[in-house]
Amino acid sequence: MNFEMIEAAAKRLKGHARVTPLLSSPFLDEIAGRRVFIKPEALQHTGSFKFRGGWSAVSALTDNALKAGVIAFSSGNHAQGVALAAREHGVSAVIVMPADAPQMKIDNTRALGAEVVLYDRATESRDEIGKTLSQERGLTLIKPFDEPQVIAGQGTCGLEIAAQADEMGVDAREVLVCCGGGGLTSGIALALEKKAPKLKVRPVEPEGFDDVARSLDAGEIKSNAQVSGSICDAIITQQPGDLTFPIMQRLCGPGIVVPEEDCLRAMAHAFARLKLVLEPGGAIALAAALFHAHQIEGDDVIVVASGGNVDAPLFQDALAKYGSLE
Amino acid sequence: MNFEMIEAAAKRLKGHARVTPLLSSPFLDEIAGRRVFIKPEALQHTGSFKFRGGWSAVSALTDNALKAGVIAFSSGNHAQGVALAAREHGVSAVIVMPADAPQMKIDNTRALGAEVVLYDRATESRDEIGKTLSQERGLTLIKPFDEPQVIAGQGTCGLEIAAQADEMGVDAREVLVCCGGGGLTSGIALALEKKAPKLKVRPVEPEGFDDVARSLDAGEIKSNAQVSGSICDAIITQQPGDLTFPIMQRLCGPGIVVPEEDCLRAMAHAFARLKLVLEPGGAIALAAALFHAHQIEGDDVIVVASGGNVDAPLFQDALAKYGSLE
Repeated sequence: MNFEMIEAAAKRLKGHARVTPLLSSPFLDEIAGRRVFIKPEALQHTGSFKFRGGWSAVSALTDNALKAGVIAFSSGNHAQGVALAAREHGVSAVIVMPADAPQMKIDNTRALGAEVVLYDRATESRDEIGKTLSQERGLTLIKPFDEPQVIAGQGTCGLEIAAQADEMGVDAREVLVCCGGGGLTSGIALALEKKAPKLKVRPVEPEGFDDVARSLDAGEIKSNAQVSGSICDAIITQQPGDLTFPIMQRLCGPGIVVPEEDCLRAMAHAFARLKLVLEPGGAIALAAALFHAHQIEGDDVIVVASGGNVDAPLFQDALAKYGSLE
Repeated sequence: MNFEMIEAAAKRLKGHARVTPLLSSPFLDEIAGRRVFIKPEALQHTGSFKFRGGWSAVSALTDNALKAGVIAFSSGNHAQGVALAAREHGVSAVIVMPADAPQMKIDNTRALGAEVVLYDRATESRDEIGKTLSQERGLTLIKPFDEPQVIAGQGTCGLEIAAQADEMGVDAREVLVCCGGGGLTSGIALALEKKAPKLKVRPVEPEGFDDVARSLDAGEIKSNAQVSGSICDAIITQQPGDLTFPIMQRLCGPGIVVPEEDCLRAMAHAFARLKLVLEPGGAIALAAALFHAHQIEGDDVIVVASGGNVDAPLFQDALAKYGSLE
């Protein structure tokens, strides 16, 4: 896993993935006490950055592997990313999803042409199911984060951040990234190491699911006690990956841990100030910038808003609770 | 009013206005029966395209005029656009707004440093109030649409559409534009005339407020019977402008008229499929593309989503009604 793979992925993604803009609002700057730049990956195809990794991995397959099809397991964003990437490559995709994933993510994955296999997050192992199906049908497994071509794809987001931060005159700042298994976080960190070495990545996680923060702190991989029961479904993983953790350990600053409720508040602010729909896990880095500003250094901060696949009722709840922005 | 003014405005806006991307979703394509490309001006500074015109007009003032300050009347989007442009130029702004404008628009305009003067849309004339205040205090009036530098600013959106459509391989298609007084519509039309002459602009308006459609049909300016009572507050005007109408008459295809309720439906689709917050008036061109597809020609259509300044309760209502996308 190296920087050159990110550059190669960027070439394969060109014209397929969307270059997302860098957003801002004077109202958010005021709350945060510094300039806040938001990289809205919710605007990426399929509503999250995961399309980058999905496209990168599918487009890197050999012709024979492509023909046989792919399989992925995912709570929903990687699912959609791989499903659309597969469909656009004209190949079949099987997606293993938890039965309690947001309905929209399940529906969309099916609508994008994938075969969806549901499992019980509490009692079954998605890795086992994935492995079995993959072997039985000869499908290539595209892991959600601990997979070099996936990390390379997510890293293309970092290439864009480096270029856009430079345009904005932002350097030597922190880049807050919503963090699950660390695919996006480590990919961006690798890209910035080469392209904007003064931008330091910091992973952001929800309370109770702070495996990356604790792992970075301990200097070794730590697990979460639970792997379900959070509205931040997109970034709940057992533990950081064997590939992603060493990269984060080498390049990332300490993790920031945020209460779930702050994600709902951040969603209301993104609605009002950025006109952007974020899901709870996709809003957590913005929540850190807005409501945990004392943990951050510098006059500016860059925030990755990683996804927007939220069911309407939960979004309505967030607005009902925090839409007054108080 | 000519194309060169749009190019000059684009130079002044560079680095200040945001270049908005061109979005799409396979789910929207399916509903519309053709590829739909969305230009999300809700992502522009202040949440609507109006910042383009505001910046263009303020930045075109002489030093003396700048020093004296500016005044504008607006239901809220032009208000915020001019307020922010004035603040960034370090000059004062007075904004005359209807008392029944969405609270968020009033609050934001004040928070952007402008002095807000409220009036009763049913019994008072904003033009009169604007003229009086302008004369009393020596302020330069920046009219919301019938003003060459404002049209030039809005036209920069058309320059971006021309370039982005070309990248996407889209030509000879219709461009649906949310239409009030015609500033955005005529600006885009002028830009496309030079840069992408096969792209034809069609104004979209709500039922009961279809002054532009009727004016184009009649070949002369027609008025609306009413100027309030629509959720599409951003695009409710008495009649097309003296400057904008001849441009639209020369360059635009027939208007499309859409029931308000379809705007709420389109808002729910933009939420789910584009992760974009739209206000009713800002969603009306998308509503036309999705739900009135038979009135449109071509394999592709470009839609301008002009603004996203909607109060949370109305957005919640739209999701409660149409969030299931049925």
